[in-house]
Amino acid sequence: MGIPALAVSLGDPAGVGPELIGAAWALRNSAALPPFFAVGGAQLLAAAGKTRGLTLPIEIIADPAEASVVFPRALPVLGHDDAPYCPGAPDKDGARLALGSLRKAAQLAVAGQAAGVVTGPIAKARLAEVGFTFPGQTEFVAHASGTAAENAVMLLAGPNLRTVPLTVHCSLASVPGQISIDLICNRSRITAASLQRDFGIANPRLAICALNPHAGEDGRFGDEEQRIIAPAIALLRAEGIDATGPHPADSLFSPHARDSFDVALCMYHDQALIPLKALDFDNGVNMTLGLPIVRTSPDHGTAFAIAGKGLANPGATLAAIRMAGDAAMRRRSKSA
Amino acid sequence: MGIPALAVSLGDPAGVGPELIGAAWALRNSAALPPFFAVGGAQLLAAAGKTRGLTLPIEIIADPAEASVVFPRALPVLGHDDAPYCPGAPDKDGARLALGSLRKAAQLAVAGQAAGVVTGPIAKARLAEVGFTFPGQTEFVAHASGTAAENAVMLLAGPNLRTVPLTVHCSLASVPGQISIDLICNRSRITAASLQRDFGIANPRLAICALNPHAGEDGRFGDEEQRIIAPAIALLRAEGIDATGPHPADSLFSPHARDSFDVALCMYHDQALIPLKALDFDNGVNMTLGLPIVRTSPDHGTAFAIAGKGLANPGATLAAIRMAGDAAMRRRSKSA
Repeated sequence: MGIPALAVSLGDPAGVGPELIGAAWALRNSAALPPFFAVGGAQLLAAAGKTRGLTLPIEIIADPAEASVVFPRALPVLGHDDAPYCPGAPDKDGARLALGSLRKAAQLAVAGQAAGVVTGPIAKARLAEVGFTFPGQTEFVAHASGTAAENAVMLLAGPNLRTVPLTVHCSLASVPGQISIDLICNRSRITAASLQRDFGIANPRLAICALNPHAGEDGRFGDEEQRIIAPAIALLRAEGIDATGPHPADSLFSPHARDSFDVALCMYHDQALIPLKALDFDNGVNMTLGLPIVRTSPDHGTAFAIAGKGLANPGATLAAIRMAGDAAMRRRSKSA
Repeated sequence: MGIPALAVSLGDPAGVGPELIGAAWALRNSAALPPFFAVGGAQLLAAAGKTRGLTLPIEIIADPAEASVVFPRALPVLGHDDAPYCPGAPDKDGARLALGSLRKAAQLAVAGQAAGVVTGPIAKARLAEVGFTFPGQTEFVAHASGTAAENAVMLLAGPNLRTVPLTVHCSLASVPGQISIDLICNRSRITAASLQRDFGIANPRLAICALNPHAGEDGRFGDEEQRIIAPAIALLRAEGIDATGPHPADSLFSPHARDSFDVALCMYHDQALIPLKALDFDNGVNMTLGLPIVRTSPDHGTAFAIAGKGLANPGATLAAIRMAGDAAMRRRSKSA
């Protein structure tokens, strides 16, 4: 029995999730990965590994506590749930396996039997067909860990940049109406606390983006900076949070400017995702802040079109496992 | 008398414009620059060069046709207009010099006495104080060359990426109402023709961005893709233009995706500028497409705070001069 290991959910078995779990285990030493176990899918994982030329030693475990002992010699897989491996051809059996794996992984993290959860990529529409009622895994994990949806904050992180989108899957036209002082302050407080707790940054520097180009040029085009964003920053600063802005978003992600902050709070989806994917496409991690548990995910989809072809880049999966392991270690050492 | 040289306007004399002209001339051989001349500011340029450790040989010329002969041995400066060099301290005399330099440079290009115009960075508010009535240099150059403002298209180009913003200095809230089929088609046609004429790309590939995240996911959040952008693309394709999309903007600027197009047409300012400045901050060029003359500009401002300190990076100025020279050469060889 060692330290708790991370629980990794399979994601959709027809996507690139299973092969990337195998690739990550094979690279565990060179990538300095913390111990993890897959939740279900032993035969599936073996078959997926073969498509990448990997012969994976797999050991089925009955208790997550066995994982860190098994991990150096074999990929630990919890339980006997499984499905046939049909890359690129998602079906309901696969969706059920994905949902069960996700549920179990989250439960184990909440119960403290796993150090945290790393979720593999799912197809939301497929999961909805077998009873999944959440907009995405972020909301599911928030609910499973007893966190209100508005307090679960999406962080996107790559080697060059961390961003938090304040609004996500909504029309661009609806964005200005959704930005509020409360939204900015609430998400900023959660973000600052998480950068301290999970990333070990003592005084996190938060750069708050403007909504309008050139930050509206003193109200010449758009007044959200004056009405909403600047007052929110003043409130945060009064609380001792190192928040700056509103920064014109176009120059904030240049190489010079990136050194001046630890995280950028962005007003809408593409403002946060364009720079991250331009700079860190193959290594982007999606982490949910504000939860009692650690949760990360590679920031890519199921990629059904390339599943089973040995083409999927494991960078984001490696980064997601490492980031979850680091955060779990920091939480442990703080609570110890 | 050699081939026509490029006319370079000084920009605000208190900004980084003059020192970067000197730096560009000093680097003319290693950077493989075409011949250019500055319009006015001989003493100013000499003083600005000194702040970068450059002792510039300067020759005042009376006729632009002398420039390409002088260029190998000295920085050619047209005419005797000048102003004291006070880096970081803009004033009205300087603004008048900047405006005169810009006017003359554009006139020479229109008259065919210059191969094109490269405009130095100005401070719009300062220029407005001395009678400049245009929103920016792009509109001025369009007017000076007899082009309707809506047909002057802003292209932003770096070593990694070219983008065209379809709307620019307006609030984000007003963007959805400004996007139209006509706007997209008109700007796309001008862009495609310019990539052929000025960049020598026989069949330019235009990637048209979505407005909404994930391109609206089939209308789930936002219908501009279905109502406006997709129909515009269909029209363009029917005309034989290789336009694709609407592409979700977040992944369009990733390293893999960037290889699939020659230019991205973006719906708003930050969608075009965020990826460009994240990837190509020090080498971004602003080129005006759709004009009878060639016009480029380094894509940065006056940077008053660092003027005269030897800190300004000449990369964008070198790139702007080279891009203008290449475009002028292609137009010459086609009309010859």
